[in-house]
Amino acid sequence: MELSRTHQDLFELIAIPSISTLPEHKQDIMRAADWLKQYLVDSGIPTENIQFLHSPELDTEKHHPVVFGQLIANPNNPTVLVYGHYDVQPVDPIDQWQSDPFKAEVRDGFIYARGATDDKGQLMTQLAAVREFIAQAKAAGNELPLNFKFLIEGEEENGGENIEHIIKDPKFSELLKADICLVSDGPWVDPQHPTIEYGLRGITYAQINVRLADSDMHSGLFGGGVLNPINALTQILAQLQDRNTGKVLIPGFYDDVVDISDLERQKIAAVPYSEEQFLHDAKNAKAIWGEQGYSVAERTSARPTFDINGIWGGFQGVGAKTVIPATAHAKVSMRLVANQEPQKIFELLKNYVAQIALKEVDVEVELIHGGDAMLAPLDSPYIQKAAQALQETFGVDPVYARSGGSIPAIALMQSKLGVTPILLNYGFGDDGMHGPNERFSMQQFEKGIQANLKFLQLIS
Amino acid sequence: MELSRTHQDLFELIAIPSISTLPEHKQDIMRAADWLKQYLVDSGIPTENIQFLHSPELDTEKHHPVVFGQLIANPNNPTVLVYGHYDVQPVDPIDQWQSDPFKAEVRDGFIYARGATDDKGQLMTQLAAVREFIAQAKAAGNELPLNFKFLIEGEEENGGENIEHIIKDPKFSELLKADICLVSDGPWVDPQHPTIEYGLRGITYAQINVRLADSDMHSGLFGGGVLNPINALTQILAQLQDRNTGKVLIPGFYDDVVDISDLERQKIAAVPYSEEQFLHDAKNAKAIWGEQGYSVAERTSARPTFDINGIWGGFQGVGAKTVIPATAHAKVSMRLVANQEPQKIFELLKNYVAQIALKEVDVEVELIHGGDAMLAPLDSPYIQKAAQALQETFGVDPVYARSGGSIPAIALMQSKLGVTPILLNYGFGDDGMHGPNERFSMQQFEKGIQANLKFLQLIS
Repeated sequence: MELSRTHQDLFELIAIPSISTLPEHKQDIMRAADWLKQYLVDSGIPTENIQFLHSPELDTEKHHPVVFGQLIANPNNPTVLVYGHYDVQPVDPIDQWQSDPFKAEVRDGFIYARGATDDKGQLMTQLAAVREFIAQAKAAGNELPLNFKFLIEGEEENGGENIEHIIKDPKFSELLKADICLVSDGPWVDPQHPTIEYGLRGITYAQINVRLADSDMHSGLFGGGVLNPINALTQILAQLQDRNTGKVLIPGFYDDVVDISDLERQKIAAVPYSEEQFLHDAKNAKAIWGEQGYSVAERTSARPTFDINGIWGGFQGVGAKTVIPATAHAKVSMRLVANQEPQKIFELLKNYVAQIALKEVDVEVELIHGGDAMLAPLDSPYIQKAAQALQETFGVDPVYARSGGSIPAIALMQSKLGVTPILLNYGFGDDGMHGPNERFSMQQFEKGIQANLKFLQLIS
Repeated sequence: MELSRTHQDLFELIAIPSISTLPEHKQDIMRAADWLKQYLVDSGIPTENIQFLHSPELDTEKHHPVVFGQLIANPNNPTVLVYGHYDVQPVDPIDQWQSDPFKAEVRDGFIYARGATDDKGQLMTQLAAVREFIAQAKAAGNELPLNFKFLIEGEEENGGENIEHIIKDPKFSELLKADICLVSDGPWVDPQHPTIEYGLRGITYAQINVRLADSDMHSGLFGGGVLNPINALTQILAQLQDRNTGKVLIPGFYDDVVDISDLERQKIAAVPYSEEQFLHDAKNAKAIWGEQGYSVAERTSARPTFDINGIWGGFQGVGAKTVIPATAHAKVSMRLVANQEPQKIFELLKNYVAQIALKEVDVEVELIHGGDAMLAPLDSPYIQKAAQALQETFGVDPVYARSGGSIPAIALMQSKLGVTPILLNYGFGDDGMHGPNERFSMQQFEKGIQANLKFLQLIS
């Protein structure tokens, strides 16, 4: 494998400022998609099998194409769907970058650039591994023992609507059919431990609006005679979670939760992540807190939550204003775990709020968005092969982690396409994704390619 | 009594744009103070007995003078202290005025101008009555049966700091000594009912700050593992008031409350103010709500309250942001009634919050400001004479009202100077004080002078 060529490839892709949220980079988005198409062609994917997918329901001007390609050697062989994204975050604050974010620079063993780890660098560990895998089979004169599909989106950093519509659309389900979905788009738990991420949380995000009157009023003249909407809102919110046990109090909330198995508890407990480290990462949070009966690692990955993400109403300035506001509002979200359904959880929330809200104000609960949780089967042979590939490449047994975050596209692929998600990440926690001076370890890049290649060989 | 001259006087005073909050009107403030000084001289107050008071603790550039004057005919006679203010609110939005706010215009029996009702017009009902009272005594060749003091401030619309310091300062207590304090600066309960306002609520205004961490964090990665400061804040706030009974739950909160007497209940119930009218005035609030066991009139005037005047934290924009904020904040105020002490109530709040707050976040409670409640004795002979003066002037028995609002200067005069406050208002609820097209009924102006004069005659 000619690594220097692979580095060149990555640096070329990095040089295209494919920022998906900024309309002025639309051309760069298209250049990155074209670059990927050419890369796939050069890897041996027939040009006619490559297409830019658009959901028929969305405006192609506003939404960016999903680069799709396939190489079906033998329909009876396992099909690997490679998922990644070619778009990146904006680069603000630009003055905090030590080098040009779109000119990859290697310093102290790290590649510094926007997209270095999220996700161009990690995407290239997959694409380079597949290219090498195909090349080796061809060199040996063998039939390719695996089929490949590629699903590389251009708006992961901007809502991911296009891919979501495509995965949900029955018209595309045959095209996207696969056995496993291979993803490299995240960090290890720490730089010493190769990590298999086997779970992601789902989410239900809603807004609660409380309304008393047409406009604000004087708290001296009317205070005590009407139900202050902020008072009412805090009463509602306080009844959604037990302040002592940390349990969510919405009736039925836990009904569909898949309990943490003994095997999982062991694997989670085996991850070397101290409470000190957690608090440090949590911006020097004052203390650990959460649901009784679970460790902090379990609480933040394998258990559902209730968080108020925003709240506002009335006077927020300096000093005093004696006002009873007309309205008050809160954004709330519940991280979900398998098998909680976002829509069902929203209905439970809505019904419970309607039940507990005092009738002297109007209360409305609106869904902002929902996303499924993902939980890959830990006993899947694919997971076992992934662990073996990591062990053989890095010389260390991998740890198993459920992420507390949500990647709805992966959960959707599991639920709609029936694929087993295999998340083989190679980033580090301090790679600075989304921030200035984003970086990716050179060694992780190189060994990531080897590990992904090893995995493909092991499942062949 | 030559009314046309009195109208001219009022129109002259109105023509001085004495807006206390705008530094560019400092000269106008001084012109208004000088105008009042001359008015008092013309009324018979010796020039040497008139002075502009300044608290030695305050910057005279930033603070406006209190116009003080006195006429002591016989130290054994009752002393009437006339309180009012010569400053006015700004005139924004100026384009909504139908006539020049500083050129009084009479339309349909109303004087339209900034300060027409608040407080220049009502202040002049007092000053003109005193002038006439003095003139009549002089014409009859009698010794003046009352002593007069005047305390007319220039920053009532801008915090009232100067007068507050002066009343609290022992150096001024002999100078300000009086038996009653006469105030005309508010509305009747409705245009049909002369009103004696005998109570004002006090206030404790505080801010609660909850802090978790140095900066915001991702709710997916950390949600469930730390105590979200908004969750913590809503839990605290919800424990401060019973959502079913409306009672404030701070231990000791009601200890010093003076219960509503049977006499008061009757007088409050006699005020013709419907719940429909209340809801209309409360910006079409959805419903009546409040402390169990009390009528809406009692709740909004004679009972203490707990209101959250503002709340903020986290994301307040459109859509979703999955953040756990570093901090969350709320402004809270408690309207107080006699004999609750603002500082003591603050300590009770602070201690209770410290007790109920979860320890996994830092919680701070800071006092923004406090003000005493005022309650005039309903059985005072002065109140009875005031009622008689109103009855004889307007031909209708007056109603008795406690206001839910707070005028700390009047409460202070009662508590520090021992005066009995007599609030004889002549405004209407829809006079538009603080808004565009402020007005004052011409008839109320004229009869207000007569009623105040009658009152002075009755107590002589």
